[in-house]
Amino acid sequence: MNPNDMVKKQLEHRTIREFKDESISKEILDTLIEVARRTASSTGMQACSIIRVTDPGLRKEISIICKQEYVARAPELLIFIADQFRNFKIAEEMDCFDESSANMDRFFQAYTDACIAAQNVVNAAEAMDLGAVYLGSILNDSEKICELLQLPKLTYPVVGLGIGHPNQNPELKPRMDMDLRVFENTYTVFDNYLEEIKEYDEEMRTYYDLRDTNKRVDSFSDQVVSKVKNVLPKRQAMFDIVRKQGFKEFK
Amino acid sequence: MNPNDMVKKQLEHRTIREFKDESISKEILDTLIEVARRTASSTGMQACSIIRVTDPGLRKEISIICKQEYVARAPELLIFIADQFRNFKIAEEMDCFDESSANMDRFFQAYTDACIAAQNVVNAAEAMDLGAVYLGSILNDSEKICELLQLPKLTYPVVGLGIGHPNQNPELKPRMDMDLRVFENTYTVFDNYLEEIKEYDEEMRTYYDLRDTNKRVDSFSDQVVSKVKNVLPKRQAMFDIVRKQGFKEFK
Repeated sequence: MNPNDMVKKQLEHRTIREFKDESISKEILDTLIEVARRTASSTGMQACSIIRVTDPGLRKEISIICKQEYVARAPELLIFIADQFRNFKIAEEMDCFDESSANMDRFFQAYTDACIAAQNVVNAAEAMDLGAVYLGSILNDSEKICELLQLPKLTYPVVGLGIGHPNQNPELKPRMDMDLRVFENTYTVFDNYLEEIKEYDEEMRTYYDLRDTNKRVDSFSDQVVSKVKNVLPKRQAMFDIVRKQGFKEFK
Repeated sequence: MNPNDMVKKQLEHRTIREFKDESISKEILDTLIEVARRTASSTGMQACSIIRVTDPGLRKEISIICKQEYVARAPELLIFIADQFRNFKIAEEMDCFDESSANMDRFFQAYTDACIAAQNVVNAAEAMDLGAVYLGSILNDSEKICELLQLPKLTYPVVGLGIGHPNQNPELKPRMDMDLRVFENTYTVFDNYLEEIKEYDEEMRTYYDLRDTNKRVDSFSDQVVSKVKNVLPKRQAMFDIVRKQGFKEFK
């Protein structure tokens, strides 16, 4: 194997939102699931589950929460779940009723398991020439997602993935210089970030221009401000839903 | 490229804890950092930073927190940071002082960015025949990690990675059947989990036997109970440190 081929794929990662009207074979889907299974897991607890959403009505409802109609059309739609329910039940069946199954440590372990499983699946998909889109937007209303997917206590939806055969070839999105993001031994605070990202801001403007001439051109710093000002109440309150799902802070 | 080669690597993932006494070349390290840079990011905000720990004293202190002496010896030690500080500063320099830079939504976006960047780096490392170990154990004392790495407000350490040339070849660790972890449309609750994982419990006992005859043999269900009973107060209270780092729940 030429490892550079794999890394090359990673360096060429683009979000794919438009897919060919062609389903993913069972063999490929099984492979993606097996990759999720083999993903590293915090203390080996495998505290991530996956809901494969195939029901058109359910997909429609999820796409409304995501505010992205293409979500309903993705050939595969997988929702990655932080899941401490299964191990809670196993412990209970072993006559272990300790409340610590529900503590914050367990929540974050499960959340991390779900994230890294999703990225592992993305890499496998891209290795097989499929494309993928992350759907962080399921958290626009995590309570509704819990209801729709009938998630039991001690589970929480972390991220969705739309996967399929790409039907678009977007430009590589500009990213800020890693000098701003990688530090040796201790965190480096810069005196003037706008100065540091000046060229990047310009590059971002060009990128959007090329991709879609109808789209408003935004520098990165303008995008940052838009995100800060765009407060989605249900997203901001997501931790209430984490608690509602049974995770607790024990003091 | 034969995509199966890439997926094969993913299916063969093992945690590598022992590395050859051989440093990672600058070229390879730069490639790993570039892979982190190209990783998908929630709404493109790139809210993940990386601290590369090279200082021996610092490594020693981190290995004590992790309770794993090999952490100090890994050729590369990278700590992935959920980072909303940089974008908060950019917004501030743009005269946007909204408190929403610090809300829970932003925290989780950054946390997710850090997790998926870490997994992308693991995949790249393994593609280049390196091995890696996840260090969730940095959260044994996240407050101390914040101090050691001088993390500013609106940052939080998510996970560490030790990376190097493998000096061990562990067996593939048994994993539970994905029928227990993948569901269609809605979550499936089973009547009896111990019954469902009976074979897996047996398989796990065999695995530990082969790896290290001195290690206590634990079925998966026994491991679950041990984890539930092993409450680490500072891990359980990690959300206090998230708040101490300035992230807030606005009601």
